[in-house]
Amino acid sequence: MPRTFHDELIVIDALEFSNWDRETLEELRAGGVTAVHVTVAVWENCRETLSNISAWHRRFEEHADIVMQARSADDIRRAKSLGRTAIVFGFQNSSPIEDDIGLVEVFHDLGVRIMQLTYNNQSLIGGSCYEETDSGISRFGREVIAEMNRVGMVVDVSHCGERTGFEAVEISQRPIAITHANPKSFHPGLRNKSDDLIRAVCEGGGMLGFSVYPLHIGGAATPLARFCEMIARTAEMVGAEHLGLGTDQSRKWDDSFLDWIRSGRWKKGVDFGEGSATNRGWPEWPRWFRTPADFPNITKGLLDIGFGREEVAGIMGGNWLRFFDAGFAPATAERKAAGAATVQDHAAAE
Amino acid sequence: MPRTFHDELIVIDALEFSNWDRETLEELRAGGVTAVHVTVAVWENCRETLSNISAWHRRFEEHADIVMQARSADDIRRAKSLGRTAIVFGFQNSSPIEDDIGLVEVFHDLGVRIMQLTYNNQSLIGGSCYEETDSGISRFGREVIAEMNRVGMVVDVSHCGERTGFEAVEISQRPIAITHANPKSFHPGLRNKSDDLIRAVCEGGGMLGFSVYPLHIGGAATPLARFCEMIARTAEMVGAEHLGLGTDQSRKWDDSFLDWIRSGRWKKGVDFGEGSATNRGWPEWPRWFRTPADFPNITKGLLDIGFGREEVAGIMGGNWLRFFDAGFAPATAERKAAGAATVQDHAAAE
Repeated sequence: MPRTFHDELIVIDALEFSNWDRETLEELRAGGVTAVHVTVAVWENCRETLSNISAWHRRFEEHADIVMQARSADDIRRAKSLGRTAIVFGFQNSSPIEDDIGLVEVFHDLGVRIMQLTYNNQSLIGGSCYEETDSGISRFGREVIAEMNRVGMVVDVSHCGERTGFEAVEISQRPIAITHANPKSFHPGLRNKSDDLIRAVCEGGGMLGFSVYPLHIGGAATPLARFCEMIARTAEMVGAEHLGLGTDQSRKWDDSFLDWIRSGRWKKGVDFGEGSATNRGWPEWPRWFRTPADFPNITKGLLDIGFGREEVAGIMGGNWLRFFDAGFAPATAERKAAGAATVQDHAAAE
Repeated sequence: MPRTFHDELIVIDALEFSNWDRETLEELRAGGVTAVHVTVAVWENCRETLSNISAWHRRFEEHADIVMQARSADDIRRAKSLGRTAIVFGFQNSSPIEDDIGLVEVFHDLGVRIMQLTYNNQSLIGGSCYEETDSGISRFGREVIAEMNRVGMVVDVSHCGERTGFEAVEISQRPIAITHANPKSFHPGLRNKSDDLIRAVCEGGGMLGFSVYPLHIGGAATPLARFCEMIARTAEMVGAEHLGLGTDQSRKWDDSFLDWIRSGRWKKGVDFGEGSATNRGWPEWPRWFRTPADFPNITKGLLDIGFGREEVAGIMGGNWLRFFDAGFAPATAERKAAGAATVQDHAAAE
């Protein structure tokens, strides 16, 4: 089979949250996916998160022929040359660090490179897009962001409220990311972001990863062309170099797991999350992205909508790779000193 | 000041357990100590151990001019060339991995390179030298040793019972260590080891680190020459290349901490450990080794007793360095396969 344009690309999915097994890992290979940011915590505390990480260690051991851990952008390049998929650990919540700033470096040491400041509920760090009132970044949150900046852990505001998102851009000394969400102007979902926040994140050197999650795009019937038009419109707004994918793909979970990621142990009743009482199960995915094996469809869709090859290479993964090159590296001593000063300045100003 | 023979050496202390601060870290530099195996858990569970590790992260940040973490023997060589002291993390108990074999690799990832199978009490893995009956290595213990062999974490039997020690030598596919104890034939302390066990460990390619802890050498009055004679006698028995130091130095703890390391939370009453009701505080250290700054005295003592310079270089650290070169590296795939087979063979034979 001749190698296609897609085969040559570094393809990065900045968020998947699947019930990983041989089959789902092989779907990544089938889709030519070079790297995936996987979720190792959503409500879990520190100890529970270590068990999730050790489940990945076992997968790395058992499926060493097709996957490997990535702690740096260079590891992602290495995976490409080895024909494997690189796995980058990330949190969708700050629950794993509990109330302990020291755990930021502990988890960084274990390879965690991206942390959302909140999941769907207010955290010790900030406010969520599901809360009626978004507190913005807390006292602890300012310290945690400075520490994340120091060690090289990317601040992700995908599930944060708008105020928390804007404050994270301002407080962070390094560019931040929305790994998986779409513009609210495309689809008015609670989880999607205002054009103003997307602009602020990207103007600060950050990135937006477009989600294919059906409830973020207006349902499974949304055609690929419309999804790609959204990307084109956003590129006009912030520049294509700040855009990537974060599909939010979730393979092979049953509905009880959906209850867990929505209700955790914070609620005795049922939470419907982005669903509703009449639509509470896993949604159907669009025909053009049923699994990560369908990534070549998106490459084709972007070319069809008129993006140039270089732009497509960037959106499919090159832009995330460049962002990870900087974002996963520890801050220099000077940067760190600057970060510390800023946190103190904030304190002094209040 | 002209550089002395001691200054040129790679000096390794295979066990210290101090209340580390700037002063105690500077004592290491003053003693020309290149690397120390420090204790990050004695009774602590997984989560608590992470806090101990993060306290070290903070020390690495605050005292970066004099200390650094070592994950490999090469890191120790690097520390020597940078004029810093390398810190190797280790456990004096298996409590941090709880009942979860997956935590072996998690902690290895965090830099833990040595684990005692038991502290003073029977653990989930084996029997202690303080127990009336030593169970030997448990079912879980066999699995954990195989996993330690795979990832590159040294098996340490310093506080284990004799039977557990012999079984560890037999079960481990890689050489093991007694990081800090002396021959019982020198001083009949509960924690000291039989010549037979020392021989078994060393014949298997392992190492013995001599302890200066007063209750292991017959008290603070024991002269340096007698300590060095013990080393010479042991060298005749197993060869000097299997010998090093593991002083068990404990600086700046108060007596309440001694209660913690003896009684943990397993006993409501007072445990006297190696002390007694009339002698329950921290013991006085010998005049020739009050702090790690006194390491040059031991170099001199070994030369005085008649060891050659190469032998002294080995005992002061070169032998540990060579042992760590092999022991801290992950097993090859073949070795791992062999290890797995042996565990199964054991099961089949019983």
